[in-house]
Amino acid sequence: MLAEIKGLNEECGVFGIWGHPSAAEITYYGLHSLQHRGQEGAGMVVTDGEILKGLKGEGLVTEVFTSDAIKDVKGKAAIGHVRYATAGGGGYENVQPLLFHSQNGSLALAHNGNLVNANALKHQLETQGSIFQTSSDTEVLAHLIKRSGFTLMQDRLKNALTMLKGAYAFLVMTETEMMVALDPHGLRPLSIGKLADAYIVASETCALDIVGAEFVRDVLPGELVIFDDEGMRSEMFSYNTTKAMCTMEYIYFSRPDSNINGVNVHTARKNLGKRLAFEAPIEADVVTGVPDSSISAAIGYAEAAGIPYEMGLIKNRYVGRTFIQPSQSLREQGVKMKLSPVRGVVEGKRVIMVDDSIVRGTTSKRIVRMLKEAGATEVHVVISSAPIQNPCFYGIDTSSREELIASKHSVEEIRQLIEADSLTFLSVEGMVEAIGRQEEGETRGSCLACFTGKYPTEIYPDMLLASCGAGPFF
Amino acid sequence: MLAEIKGLNEECGVFGIWGHPSAAEITYYGLHSLQHRGQEGAGMVVTDGEILKGLKGEGLVTEVFTSDAIKDVKGKAAIGHVRYATAGGGGYENVQPLLFHSQNGSLALAHNGNLVNANALKHQLETQGSIFQTSSDTEVLAHLIKRSGFTLMQDRLKNALTMLKGAYAFLVMTETEMMVALDPHGLRPLSIGKLADAYIVASETCALDIVGAEFVRDVLPGELVIFDDEGMRSEMFSYNTTKAMCTMEYIYFSRPDSNINGVNVHTARKNLGKRLAFEAPIEADVVTGVPDSSISAAIGYAEAAGIPYEMGLIKNRYVGRTFIQPSQSLREQGVKMKLSPVRGVVEGKRVIMVDDSIVRGTTSKRIVRMLKEAGATEVHVVISSAPIQNPCFYGIDTSSREELIASKHSVEEIRQLIEADSLTFLSVEGMVEAIGRQEEGETRGSCLACFTGKYPTEIYPDMLLASCGAGPFF
Amino acid sequence: MLAEIKGLNEECGVFGIWGHPSAAEITYYGLHSLQHRGQEGAGMVVTDGEILKGLKGEGLVTEVFTSDAIKDVKGKAAIGHVRYATAGGGGYENVQPLLFHSQNGSLALAHNGNLVNANALKHQLETQGSIFQTSSDTEVLAHLIKRSGFTLMQDRLKNALTMLKGAYAFLVMTETEMMVALDPHGLRPLSIGKLADAYIVASETCALDIVGAEFVRDVLPGELVIFDDEGMRSEMFSYNTTKAMCTMEYIYFSRPDSNINGVNVHTARKNLGKRLAFEAPIEADVVTGVPDSSISAAIGYAEAAGIPYEMGLIKNRYVGRTFIQPSQSLREQGVKMKLSPVRGVVEGKRVIMVDDSIVRGTTSKRIVRMLKEAGATEVHVVISSAPIQNPCFYGIDTSSREELIASKHSVEEIRQLIEADSLTFLSVEGMVEAIGRQEEGETRGSCLACFTGKYPTEIYPDMLLASCGAGPFF
Amino acid sequence: MLAEIKGLNEECGVFGIWGHPSAAEITYYGLHSLQHRGQEGAGMVVTDGEILKGLKGEGLVTEVFTSDAIKDVKGKAAIGHVRYATAGGGGYENVQPLLFHSQNGSLALAHNGNLVNANALKHQLETQGSIFQTSSDTEVLAHLIKRSGFTLMQDRLKNALTMLKGAYAFLVMTETEMMVALDPHGLRPLSIGKLADAYIVASETCALDIVGAEFVRDVLPGELVIFDDEGMRSEMFSYNTTKAMCTMEYIYFSRPDSNINGVNVHTARKNLGKRLAFEAPIEADVVTGVPDSSISAAIGYAEAAGIPYEMGLIKNRYVGRTFIQPSQSLREQGVKMKLSPVRGVVEGKRVIMVDDSIVRGTTSKRIVRMLKEAGATEVHVVISSAPIQNPCFYGIDTSSREELIASKHSVEEIRQLIEADSLTFLSVEGMVEAIGRQEEGETRGSCLACFTGKYPTEIYPDMLLASCGAGPFF
Repeated sequence: MLAEIKGLNEECGVFGIWGHPSAAEITYYGLHSLQHRGQEGAGMVVTDGEILKGLKGEGLVTEVFTSDAIKDVKGKAAIGHVRYATAGGGGYENVQPLLFHSQNGSLALAHNGNLVNANALKHQLETQGSIFQTSSDTEVLAHLIKRSGFTLMQDRLKNALTMLKGAYAFLVMTETEMMVALDPHGLRPLSIGKLADAYIVASETCALDIVGAEFVRDVLPGELVIFDDEGMRSEMFSYNTTKAMCTMEYIYFSRPDSNINGVNVHTARKNLGKRLAFEAPIEADVVTGVPDSSISAAIGYAEAAGIPYEMGLIKNRYVGRTFIQPSQSLREQGVKMKLSPVRGVVEGKRVIMVDDSIVRGTTSKRIVRMLKEAGATEVHVVISSAPIQNPCFYGIDTSSREELIASKHSVEEIRQLIEADSLTFLSVEGMVEAIGRQEEGETRGSCLACFTGKYPTEIYPDMLLASCGAGPFF
Repeated sequence: MLAEIKGLNEECGVFGIWGHPSAAEITYYGLHSLQHRGQEGAGMVVTDGEILKGLKGEGLVTEVFTSDAIKDVKGKAAIGHVRYATAGGGGYENVQPLLFHSQNGSLALAHNGNLVNANALKHQLETQGSIFQTSSDTEVLAHLIKRSGFTLMQDRLKNALTMLKGAYAFLVMTETEMMVALDPHGLRPLSIGKLADAYIVASETCALDIVGAEFVRDVLPGELVIFDDEGMRSEMFSYNTTKAMCTMEYIYFSRPDSNINGVNVHTARKNLGKRLAFEAPIEADVVTGVPDSSISAAIGYAEAAGIPYEMGLIKNRYVGRTFIQPSQSLREQGVKMKLSPVRGVVEGKRVIMVDDSIVRGTTSKRIVRMLKEAGATEVHVVISSAPIQNPCFYGIDTSSREELIASKHSVEEIRQLIEADSLTFLSVEGMVEAIGRQEEGETRGSCLACFTGKYPTEIYPDMLLASCGAGPFF
Repeated sequence: MLAEIKGLNEECGVFGIWGHPSAAEITYYGLHSLQHRGQEGAGMVVTDGEILKGLKGEGLVTEVFTSDAIKDVKGKAAIGHVRYATAGGGGYENVQPLLFHSQNGSLALAHNGNLVNANALKHQLETQGSIFQTSSDTEVLAHLIKRSGFTLMQDRLKNALTMLKGAYAFLVMTETEMMVALDPHGLRPLSIGKLADAYIVASETCALDIVGAEFVRDVLPGELVIFDDEGMRSEMFSYNTTKAMCTMEYIYFSRPDSNINGVNVHTARKNLGKRLAFEAPIEADVVTGVPDSSISAAIGYAEAAGIPYEMGLIKNRYVGRTFIQPSQSLREQGVKMKLSPVRGVVEGKRVIMVDDSIVRGTTSKRIVRMLKEAGATEVHVVISSAPIQNPCFYGIDTSSREELIASKHSVEEIRQLIEADSLTFLSVEGMVEAIGRQEEGETRGSCLACFTGKYPTEIYPDMLLASCGAGPFF
Repeated sequence: MLAEIKGLNEECGVFGIWGHPSAAEITYYGLHSLQHRGQEGAGMVVTDGEILKGLKGEGLVTEVFTSDAIKDVKGKAAIGHVRYATAGGGGYENVQPLLFHSQNGSLALAHNGNLVNANALKHQLETQGSIFQTSSDTEVLAHLIKRSGFTLMQDRLKNALTMLKGAYAFLVMTETEMMVALDPHGLRPLSIGKLADAYIVASETCALDIVGAEFVRDVLPGELVIFDDEGMRSEMFSYNTTKAMCTMEYIYFSRPDSNINGVNVHTARKNLGKRLAFEAPIEADVVTGVPDSSISAAIGYAEAAGIPYEMGLIKNRYVGRTFIQPSQSLREQGVKMKLSPVRGVVEGKRVIMVDDSIVRGTTSKRIVRMLKEAGATEVHVVISSAPIQNPCFYGIDTSSREELIASKHSVEEIRQLIEADSLTFLSVEGMVEAIGRQEEGETRGSCLACFTGKYPTEIYPDMLLASCGAGPFF
C-alpha cells in the first residue's frame, strides 16, 4: 500500500530467535513490529531441535498467523520474514522463509536485500541441472549451499556467501543452529539482542524493544554470526568490507523508534528537518508533514523555523490488501484514498509541506493539489533528502531510471510538474551531516548511490539494462 | 482495541447518503473514515427505491465489505454504521443498521448514542407482546415506530422520538426516504454534506471530506431532517432543546481533521495543550504525547512551553480483532502490546508526557513505567482534560463509577498510583476556553457531565444503580 | 442441490436432546444424519440451564459447525435444525433455530413443516405492533407465545399451538425445558429416543441410530411432550386428531434406514418396486434406478420381475453450495451435472428406469435422453408413486400447480414429453398397500393430498391463489 | 476418509486436456468425477500457450477451485490432479500438479502411481546438488528431465522415463505441448478421449463421460503420447512391456461407471459377486453389501443365489476434512461414524454381508458387531477378492506387511477375529475369471501381486524393508 504513495519500497524485514520456549510467539510480535517493511506476505520457520516446521501466507502478520496456527509450530528457535512483493514475484511460493528438506536435513532461509548477480548465478545453476521453485533471488543461496563441497554447514554457507554480490541480511536455520550473515558493505540493517538466555536478530531495533530484548550490537559487514545451544559465536566471511548503510533507512523505511547503526531514526529525521529549515528558510503560516514518515522532519523544520507545526494532512488507516480501491469515476468525484487534507488547518494559509523524498512525483502533485483545493494559498514543498537520480539495485523498488523524475528533470521543472509554489531538496552534505553518523569519510558510512550514482558494489549488466527498461538479460 | 488503552469508548459512527448511483461504495469510504469510532462491527443497508438490502458483519469495514458483497447491494441510497461493542452486546444480531421487514414495507435503523430510558421502554413493550431480536437499545425505536398510531412514517418517527431520553443520532431509511434525527441536547455530532445532487449525513465531517462532499451544516438538537427524491427538508420534533455536545469528542474520540460544531479537532487539541502549558509550566527536556489522540495536544504544549516535542512513544499499528494478545508470561518478560517507548529519545531525559484523559489509571501507570524503564529520569504527566469523576450515560463506555480513578482519589493520590513525578489535569474552565466554542453560557454548548456531574438529561434509576455496580433493574 | 433434480423439496429436519453432557456434539451427529432433509443452513441452540447460546449459519452441517464453535456451546440440552431454503426465504436470519431473548428469559424454536395460516396470523400480529425479524412462518409461533395471557410456558405454548393450522413438528427450548409438538394430523415425522438418561427427539429414526439411542416411540398427532430434569411427560393439546403422515416421506425424502411410523423406508420402497413390477410387467434386459432415492424400488422391481438390476445411472457426489454449475455452453457440449449414464451397462439394452416421482418432467426427460445417448435401445419409465397432481401446502416445495406436469397432462402425453418408450405410474391403492401401514381406513394413516387432492386440513385462500401463480394475498 | 474404513488407498487421479477454450472448467468437472481417487488435495495447471498458471490447495475439488479462481486461469490446455495424502506427505507443497519455472520455460507434472526407485534416484540427485521442494516421488522426474542432455523436451522426458521403475501414469505439460506416459507394465489406468477438437486424458473413463467426451483408447504400457496444436502423436519409450493392470481398480477403487481396459467396473463387480455365490453358497435370509464399493458385488451375489438383496448398511455422506470425529467416549456410547446398520432390515435375519476386501480386519469386525447389535442372528462375511497377503509398492497405501491380517492369519483365524459366523474369500482364479479380461496368460493382464506376491517389476530393498516396518533406507 505504501507503493502507491511513494513508488519506493523495500523488500522485507527479518527476525530470528534462538533458545526460547516461546520462540514462535516472540517471532510473531517481532515480525508485527516490522510490518511496515512488507505487507504482502509473512512467514516463519520454527525448530524444536528435531524438525523444521514452516508457516507462511500472503497478507499481514495478523492475517497469516492465527492463534491456532502459532500453537502448531512450537519450538525453541525460529526465523521469520515479512515481505513486500515486487512485480511478478508474488505468490505463496515466494513468501519467505524458504524451507528446504533433504535426506541430510532441513534448511530455512530468510533474506532482506537484493543480489545483483542473482540472474547470472541462477542461469549457471540451471545449466548444471538445478530446479528453482521460486522466482526470488534468495533461493540461489540454497542451491549454492547444496552444491558446496564442504561438510560443515557453516563452511558450506561461507563458501556460498563468497559467490554473492549485492545487499543481503540473511537468516539461515537448521535443526541445530541459526546463522546470520550481512553483506560486506552492510547495506541492510541487522541487529542482535538478548532476551534472558535467548539471542535475537532483527532488521530493526524496534523489534528488540517490542519483545523486551536488550540491544547487544549490530551485525558487522562481512560477518557471519552463529547461534546454537552453546551460545553465540562469530567469524568474518569477508575482510574486504566497507560501511554503506542504505540512507533511505533513516529517511523513509525504518520505524522512528529504531536505532540504525546507533542513530535513532526519529532524531535523524528531526535533524533532517532542522537542517532543511536552515538550508531553505521560507515565509509561511504553517508547517505540515506527509504522514507517517515525514512527521518527524516536519516537526524539526517547524521547531527550527519557529513556524507552528500543524496536522494539515491525515492518513486513512486500516488499509490492507482487502481495501477496495475507489473506481476512477469516484476518484474524480473526490473520493480520497490514503491521505486527506485538513481544511480546518490549511484554509487560507501559506503551507510548508515537508516530505521525505520524491520518486515519480505523482504523489507530490496529488498532495499539492489536495492542499490547494482545501484552501491553502501557497504550498511550499521541502524534501528532507536530496533528489533521487539513480536506481537502487539493493532491494529498494525504484524499478527503472525512467520513472525517477529527478533523473530527467531539474528542480525547477519538477516544481512546475508538481504545481508547488516552491520546491527545495536537502543537499547531500546536509543529509549526511543531519543524520550524524560517527563514521569517517565523505559518506560517513552511508550508501548514497541513489543520490550520487556511486554504487558500493559492482553492478551487473543485466541490472543496468533492466534499469533502463530493457527486458531480462538471460 | 482502544478499549484496552483507554477504558473509554464511544459506541459507533453513522453515515448515510441519498441520491447517488454509487451509494454503497461511497458509504464504504465514509464508514472507513469513521472506523476509529468502532472496530467491532460494520454494516450498511442499501435501497434501490424498491427493496432494502442489508450487509453486515463483525470486524473492520475492510473485513465486512468485500468487493463482491458491495456489488450485490447496488442502490441509490444507503445508511451505514460502525460499531464498538459494549460488554454483553456483541454478536452478529447487534451489528447495525438493524433491518426490519413487514408486510407494509421495510425499515432500517442506525444509531450513535445511548438511550437512558431504553430498559424502561423495553420492559413496557415486552409486556405488551413485543419480541426483541437484539440486546441493543436501538431496537426500541423500531418498536415505538411500529406501534405508533400515525400513518405517515415521518409522523410515526416523530411520535416515537418524543418517547426517547438520552443521546442519539439516528439514521432511519425506508424504500423512499432517509430521515435523520438528533436528540434535543445535541449530545452526538451529526453533519450534513452534499456531493453533486446527493445528500450525505455523517457522524464527523472527515467522512464528508473523504468522499469529496461539501459541508452543508450540522443537524440541530431536536431536528428531524428528511431526504428523499425531492431533496432535503427539515422540521423540529422538539423545541425544548439545549446544546450539549460531548466534550470528549474534542478531547479523544473524533479524528483531528473533523470539525465538530464548527471547531477543528486538531486545533482544539493543540489549544488544550497550549493552555496546559500555561496552567502547568514544568521544567523538562522533552515533551511527548501518547499516540494517537494526544499528539496534537503535546505539540501545542511543546510550542507554548518552548520545549522540543519528541516522539517518545510509538504505537504498534495493524492491530485488529485477530491480533494474538501476548500471554501473561510474555508480557512479564517485556513483550509490548500497543505502545513502545523510544529509548533513543527519552533516555536520560526529563519527560513531559501529555495524555488526553485518565480513566482507570492503569494505562497511565504502564506508560510511566515504560518511559522510566527506557531511561527517562523524570516523567511529568499532564492531562489535557479535567478529571473524569462521573459515569457517562450517553454512549461512552465508562462502565461504572467504581472504575473511575478520579471519583475516588485526589490528584496527588492518583500521581502516586501512576508513579509519576508530577501530575496535572487541565481545569474545566481551561478546557472550555481552549476548545473555544462560540456558544454562550458556562459550558459554551458542551456536555461536561463526566467532569462536573451536571447531566443535561434526566437520569433513570436503573442506570444510576448500574453505574454503582448493581445488576439490571428490571 | 436436490432441488434441481426433483423440483420437490422438503423444508427441514429437527433434532433435540435433553439431559446429556455432550448435548452439542450429539446434536451435531444427529443433524448430520438428517442432512438430506436440508442443505442450505444448519443451526443449534444449546442450554446449560442458565442461558441459551445459538450457533448457526448457511451451508452444510460440517461447514457451519466447526470444532471450535462446538466447544463454545457446551450444555446439557440442545435443539438443532437443518434447512432447505425456499425461494425468497434464504439468508442468515432465516436459519433456525430462532432464538429470542426477553427480560423474562429466552426461547428457541425449530420447525419442520409449513403453516397454512401463517400469513393471516402474521398480518394480524403486525397490525397489533409486532415486528418480525425473519420471513419464516416459524416466527409466528414465538409471537403467539409472547402474547399469550398464560403464565406457565407450557400453557402459553399450548395456547399458541391451537391457533396454528397446517403441518408442523416444533421443538421449543427454554433454559429449563424442551417441548416438542406435532400437528393434529401428524403430517411430519417426529420420533422419541433415549440415550442413557437423556431423551432425544428427531425427524427420523436414523438420527437416533447414528447417535446410539434407542427408539422409544413416535410423537402422536396433537401431542405436546415436555422434557426437563424430571424426565419426560406428555399431554394432548388437541384431541381432534387424525393420522396423515406425508406419503412422500416413504417415497422420496427419508433415509432408507429410517422407520417412519413403524415402517422401514427401504423396505417400503422395495415393496413399491415389487408392486410396480406386478402392476406394470415389461419385457426388458435390465432394470436401473435413479440414485439415490429410487435404488430400493428398482431392486424390488428387478427381484419381482426376474430381470437383472444394473447400475445404469450414477450420481456425482461431493456436490455442495460451492459447486460451480457448468455454463449453458458446456452443458450443450455434454458436460454432466448430477447424473451420468453407465454406457457399459445400458448400451444395446432395453432398460427399465425406475424413478420415485415425476414433478415437472424435465429431469425425467433429461435422464431418458441420457440413457438413449448412452446406447439404450428402449427406455421404459416406471414410477413408484402415483401422478402428483396437486400442490402441497405442508412443507414440500412443489411451488405451484402450474409446474406439476401431471396436473395438466395425461400419462400418454407425459410419456411423449419425456420421450420414453413407455411410462407407468403406480396406482394410489398400490402405493398404500405397498407401504403397508397397519392403520385402518382408506389412506391407512397417510396424507395422499398431492395425489388425490384431499387435504387433511383446511386450506387458506392465499395459499390456493399462490398455488395458481398469484402473488401474495396480504 | 476412505482410509479409515478400508486401510486401503490409492494415491491420485489425473486429468488433462489440450485444445479447448474452456480447458480449466472442463478440468474442474473431470477432476470432480475423479474425486473418489483422492480427497486430500486438488490442483490444476493451465496454459494459454504463453505461460503456465497453477491453482491448487488442500481439500476437495469444490473447496480448492472457487468460481473466481477458475476464471483467473483461463487457457487452452490444462492438467489436473486429485490427491490422497500418504502419511508424512501432506501439505500444500505436495499437492499436484507440480509446477517448475526456469529460464528456459515452465514444466508441470501430475502423477498417479508410485516409483519403487524414487529414494535411490533422489539420493543420487541430491548428492549431485539438486534441491527437492516436495517429499513426493513425482519431483524426481522433473529433476531427471532437467538434467537430461537432450534438447527436445520429448527426448528429455523419454530419457528420464527410462530411469524410473514402478507404477506411473504421468501427465507433463509445457507451454506448447501435453505429454502423457504410462509405465511399461501398465499398472495404472489411463484413457484417451476426444471432445470436439480437444484431446483429453484421464485416469478413468467416467471423467470422459462426465465432460461429454468420446472414448478413443487406453494409453499403452510403455507409451508416450504427445498432444499439441497439431493433434496427437505417439511413440513407445519402452518395448519391454507387459500388461499388469492393478486388480484393485476393479475391486475397489474405480467408479462403477468406468471401463478399465475395456471392462465395465460395475459389471466386473457384479460378476465377482455372482462367482462368489457359486464358490460360497450360504443359507441366509438377506444379502447386503458394504457401501459404496461392494454394492454391485452384493447385488450380483443376491441375484445368483436367489436371496433378496437388502440395504442392511447405510453410509453417512457429506463427510469431508472438516467433519468432527466423535470422541472416544461418544463412540463408546454408540455414536456411529461412516456406516450405520439398518435395524428394520437385518433384525432377526441371517445376513450375508458382501465386502470387497479385508485389509486389517478392524473394519470388518466393527461391521459384523454393528449388524449383530442391530439384531442379525447370523452374519456371514463373503469377500469379493482373494486374501491380501502382500504389500503394494505401486501406489496403494497398504503401509506394511505387518498390518495385513491375511499375511499372518488363516481364514479361520480371521473369521474368529472379526467375529463372523462364516468367512469366505474369492479364489484368485475366480477373481481373474469374473473380471473377464480378454488378455492371454495366467493373470489375464492384471497385477495380482498383493494376492500372490508375484510383483511385475523389480522391488528395491528400501521398500521391502519399509514394508516390514523398518525406517528409511537412505
